[in-house]
Amino acid sequence: MSRPRSATAVQGQPLAGEPVARACVVGASGFAGALAAALLWRHPRVSLEALTARTEAGRRLDDLYPRYRVPLEMEPFDAERLAGLADVAMVSHPHGAAAEAVAALRAQGLRVVDLSADFRLHDLAVHERWYGPHGAPALRDEAVFGLTELHRDEIAGAALVANPGCYSTAAILALAPLAREGLVADAVVDAKSGVSGAGREANERTHFVSVDENVSAYAVEGHRHAPEIDQELEALGLGRRVTFVPHLVPLDQGLLASCYVTASRDLGADEAVELFGDTYADERFVELAAAPPGVRDVRDTNLCRIHVAAAPDGRVLVFAAIDNLWKGAAGQAVQNLNLMLGLDEAEGLG
Amino acid sequence: MSRPRSATAVQGQPLAGEPVARACVVGASGFAGALAAALLWRHPRVSLEALTARTEAGRRLDDLYPRYRVPLEMEPFDAERLAGLADVAMVSHPHGAAAEAVAALRAQGLRVVDLSADFRLHDLAVHERWYGPHGAPALRDEAVFGLTELHRDEIAGAALVANPGCYSTAAILALAPLAREGLVADAVVDAKSGVSGAGREANERTHFVSVDENVSAYAVEGHRHAPEIDQELEALGLGRRVTFVPHLVPLDQGLLASCYVTASRDLGADEAVELFGDTYADERFVELAAAPPGVRDVRDTNLCRIHVAAAPDGRVLVFAAIDNLWKGAAGQAVQNLNLMLGLDEAEGLG
Amino acid sequence: MSRPRSATAVQGQPLAGEPVARACVVGASGFAGALAAALLWRHPRVSLEALTARTEAGRRLDDLYPRYRVPLEMEPFDAERLAGLADVAMVSHPHGAAAEAVAALRAQGLRVVDLSADFRLHDLAVHERWYGPHGAPALRDEAVFGLTELHRDEIAGAALVANPGCYSTAAILALAPLAREGLVADAVVDAKSGVSGAGREANERTHFVSVDENVSAYAVEGHRHAPEIDQELEALGLGRRVTFVPHLVPLDQGLLASCYVTASRDLGADEAVELFGDTYADERFVELAAAPPGVRDVRDTNLCRIHVAAAPDGRVLVFAAIDNLWKGAAGQAVQNLNLMLGLDEAEGLG
Amino acid sequence: MSRPRSATAVQGQPLAGEPVARACVVGASGFAGALAAALLWRHPRVSLEALTARTEAGRRLDDLYPRYRVPLEMEPFDAERLAGLADVAMVSHPHGAAAEAVAALRAQGLRVVDLSADFRLHDLAVHERWYGPHGAPALRDEAVFGLTELHRDEIAGAALVANPGCYSTAAILALAPLAREGLVADAVVDAKSGVSGAGREANERTHFVSVDENVSAYAVEGHRHAPEIDQELEALGLGRRVTFVPHLVPLDQGLLASCYVTASRDLGADEAVELFGDTYADERFVELAAAPPGVRDVRDTNLCRIHVAAAPDGRVLVFAAIDNLWKGAAGQAVQNLNLMLGLDEAEGLG
Repeated sequence: MSRPRSATAVQGQPLAGEPVARACVVGASGFAGALAAALLWRHPRVSLEALTARTEAGRRLDDLYPRYRVPLEMEPFDAERLAGLADVAMVSHPHGAAAEAVAALRAQGLRVVDLSADFRLHDLAVHERWYGPHGAPALRDEAVFGLTELHRDEIAGAALVANPGCYSTAAILALAPLAREGLVADAVVDAKSGVSGAGREANERTHFVSVDENVSAYAVEGHRHAPEIDQELEALGLGRRVTFVPHLVPLDQGLLASCYVTASRDLGADEAVELFGDTYADERFVELAAAPPGVRDVRDTNLCRIHVAAAPDGRVLVFAAIDNLWKGAAGQAVQNLNLMLGLDEAEGLG
Repeated sequence: MSRPRSATAVQGQPLAGEPVARACVVGASGFAGALAAALLWRHPRVSLEALTARTEAGRRLDDLYPRYRVPLEMEPFDAERLAGLADVAMVSHPHGAAAEAVAALRAQGLRVVDLSADFRLHDLAVHERWYGPHGAPALRDEAVFGLTELHRDEIAGAALVANPGCYSTAAILALAPLAREGLVADAVVDAKSGVSGAGREANERTHFVSVDENVSAYAVEGHRHAPEIDQELEALGLGRRVTFVPHLVPLDQGLLASCYVTASRDLGADEAVELFGDTYADERFVELAAAPPGVRDVRDTNLCRIHVAAAPDGRVLVFAAIDNLWKGAAGQAVQNLNLMLGLDEAEGLG
Repeated sequence: MSRPRSATAVQGQPLAGEPVARACVVGASGFAGALAAALLWRHPRVSLEALTARTEAGRRLDDLYPRYRVPLEMEPFDAERLAGLADVAMVSHPHGAAAEAVAALRAQGLRVVDLSADFRLHDLAVHERWYGPHGAPALRDEAVFGLTELHRDEIAGAALVANPGCYSTAAILALAPLAREGLVADAVVDAKSGVSGAGREANERTHFVSVDENVSAYAVEGHRHAPEIDQELEALGLGRRVTFVPHLVPLDQGLLASCYVTASRDLGADEAVELFGDTYADERFVELAAAPPGVRDVRDTNLCRIHVAAAPDGRVLVFAAIDNLWKGAAGQAVQNLNLMLGLDEAEGLG
Repeated sequence: MSRPRSATAVQGQPLAGEPVARACVVGASGFAGALAAALLWRHPRVSLEALTARTEAGRRLDDLYPRYRVPLEMEPFDAERLAGLADVAMVSHPHGAAAEAVAALRAQGLRVVDLSADFRLHDLAVHERWYGPHGAPALRDEAVFGLTELHRDEIAGAALVANPGCYSTAAILALAPLAREGLVADAVVDAKSGVSGAGREANERTHFVSVDENVSAYAVEGHRHAPEIDQELEALGLGRRVTFVPHLVPLDQGLLASCYVTASRDLGADEAVELFGDTYADERFVELAAAPPGVRDVRDTNLCRIHVAAAPDGRVLVFAAIDNLWKGAAGQAVQNLNLMLGLDEAEGLG
């Protein structure tokens, strides 16, 4: 197997202008990391210079994911080497394993978007309850929670962006407009995710025969994305925890958050729709839909598509659909990276 | 095409004992009607004597549904002829069209299980709001709502049983134990159904490409099963409407109701589990599960599998999985028919 | 965890008559073994007395497969103990591991249906080329190849039946009528199987995301079922190997063999259809279909559904659909066991 | 509903350079037409100016296909109006209906890529046998069969390109290298297609419940793509018809052609692989794979991925995977349009 080829040296990387940054993807063999690599490979203003992987080092990414067509070899992680090749990094290691890689890259001066949960929770005690001891506590302070639509300005200047969980992204986008106005007395989020959200590990849960012709709830007594949702909505003024239950549905990419909100005062559907319209009027990746969105509508896009309605009993219903690998992971990571680099937020996101 | 063959004359119907009744299925070409025919064909104590269909008359059922292996020809509906062949009927016509057939069969003295919505709602005004004018109002008084576990005694003596909707069955079984004890202050039911629940009609919504890799809510501002749920839970003492939203998921048979209950008083998971355990201890077709059920767990069975848990915020969570064509339609119809005939409720539901 | 309960002691096993044999299933946690257990549990004339499993010992089967509703605990394999409980055994261990268990059970006097490949191939050299050294060569002579429709009489008297592979079952049933008449000059079998055929092991190949929205060939340079197909067709007079290529399709249960036969003489579609009609006229589980069968048509049945046609260029086309877990594994195993016990071949096969 | 907006007037069409042509898509509501519109909308050198549709006129395309994000309204077909807006047209009407539209557009001077079958077959008698009387026979002579890799030069200068069928594309690319060298004595093509290939019409065959958990052959006695395959392979010297049988598999986009070739002389796998390597060495959209390709590998790409192997009996095996909507329809149409416009063949194909 030849040395990993530099992206800029490989004929074919479609750079449309002068690159403003050189990037690497750390942990490119997983679903989110691979898509991050694919997006950066096609990115008109960023050159993708290196990929790393833990168990798949030595393989080319287009061997693992032919349709992404990224002809780079994955190498073992070496922060020093990466520092010579790249200015920015996307890290897509499992929770717990990411912190160490992020710390090494930050020590070398790279700016980082981390797709793991390691830097998402501001409260260390909460983090430790869900994930155990933190692997790089000193870095926690510089991390910005990367839900683009909520933290755009901080992200632009950040050295470390903690990309949100997929469920968190959909749920927070669905509830933020109401929470910010103090309109949420109580909320239930029933979320449905495709199997790519469970990661590339083969186990009983991801076996085709377990998922096919099935739908079920899981982690009903507490899922790790719940504290992310609570953290962000509390910051907007919500005083009460959200009830959040994820479900697995038999599809690959896609996530639907169905939100049931008891409003703190009488709130008609029209007012709610208007509020969402105002909130997201200038957003490139949030669309209001006239009917409940399907996850197919946003497949392979960075969109979050939202429908707002009122149930006959007055409850406010908000449905938010995203592609869990795009807006729920790698797409939003690129959106954030664009901000960090002073680029148009939609660059390279089709 | 030969005359429809009488089931008793066809070699192969596996009657294990003396039949206690002769049955017909009216509307056997739809998904629920066909399964009803398949179940009755294998039923050890009921002989299946005739099938009817509106558009598919003249075809054999095993031509349409080979795996059900029912070698009978579907004939046009003729109540008088059916009265000569059968003592009981299962009617599986679309809502609105069923009432007339039921009336004709009742006029001939047959006892009927109706799988449509035509006789489910006790309040005529509510019925008309959802379905328009009723086709056989005089018969409404004799109809019993056929949720077996709630109305067993009335069903046993009924001449007309209105088999519940699939969503209603799961939601009511999930909420009844709490509602009966006055424990439900508020409830949200987020339900997910396979496509067979949408019926055999080919349209944009049931096209494979619309459903595949998709999940979406529908009828969010009101679904026809909501008044059934409210009717039955109100009868148990619930004073408030349930918020009910159905979703379509990419699978064939299966329905999951995820219920989010705000309890009227502090209620721990243990107490809730115990309550469900007591309520359903003697039920043959309701099972409590130690983990959230998947619809695969109940596929092709008449089971309703329920898991009860408490969310971190104290909300009570109830997940109920059924096969929408079995416990949600034809299976429960056979269960009810068994009661009407004085048979073991599980006969033929193996 | 309580002691494994004897099936006869558990209320609910639906024995319709006096049991003629006591059975055990060795290796009940895999897909085929679990279905074998489910079929025997409901079998009207066989009592299921014990289940074993290698890695899942201690769990109840209805915990792993709720819909099968078999309330027995799986125990570690102990041939002596099983000999005290059962007269016959179904063995569903992986290839290689089965031989030893079969030998131990035969040593205790149990008659065995083995679902593995360990006793299928008559030629030891061929066996060793595909599977390595044989684990119980002394037993090979007493094994009968369990394709029921071809070897009914031998099976009836056998002490050890080697249940055929799923692909072999469909391909042999599709080609036998032509091969026996010397009509096959050349044959290609393009087979498509659902994922349950790949077994319960979780790996990259069975991960939902690998299979979903995919179809691909595998083992194109040689699959282990090919020598079974060749062995049986050669015995019928075919002088040439069949080209056999399996494909994986995104579904759970089902297998379609599409067979392309160059006939040794001009053979019209009508003559071919008549030949198949004559061959299978008295078969309970082979059906001729007027149109190409879908695997849905035979799902959860022991049927093999066959359609015969002629291509415009004169080639004879034969399509055979089975459920790989039923006729392709556990269903045919029960069919064979029925013969061994002198019962109606269809007993317990619905 | 506002007047259809011109693409160039809508903010957002991502033209990267000076457009070299203005395009319209006629029949944009079907699966292939919609993708053609999406590809042209994002095309860096072509401006998409108008869409038409027969039954969906008045709706915006992003209402029907949100993920494609084409914010144009579909209008009724009006050749004169289109001539004022566009230089080139892609026509995606059903077979039979396309000829008339093509004729009207050609009369107005537009160059056309027609995705229907109306201009694919050179022999009028063959065309009429499969499709009935031709709607624009006078235009047949100017049509070029648009399998890019075979007819690149003619396509570049053509006024009318007949884009091949999806099955034809895969089968011809799989067999052409062997046919051209006179190496095919006999060939069987067993093809598997996703449901988008069956079109957007809702009928019993495309109903989710018909397709889900199913796989079956269809049109076994003759499919309309067979004469296209034969026409092109005959032109390369093949003297014998190919046996072609299509199958429907439960997925959306993707098509696999499994080809079984009896070589006219002894041909090892290495020689065959080398031949394919030489033939397709310079092709941008044909890739040789080291293992059998899955349709997932090419999803949403214009690639044809081919694996060549030898069966144990010496038969040559060729597996070709494409996305039926891309290389099998709209993608290849854009590839052809690029050639017609003197652009890089891969422009706008990601």
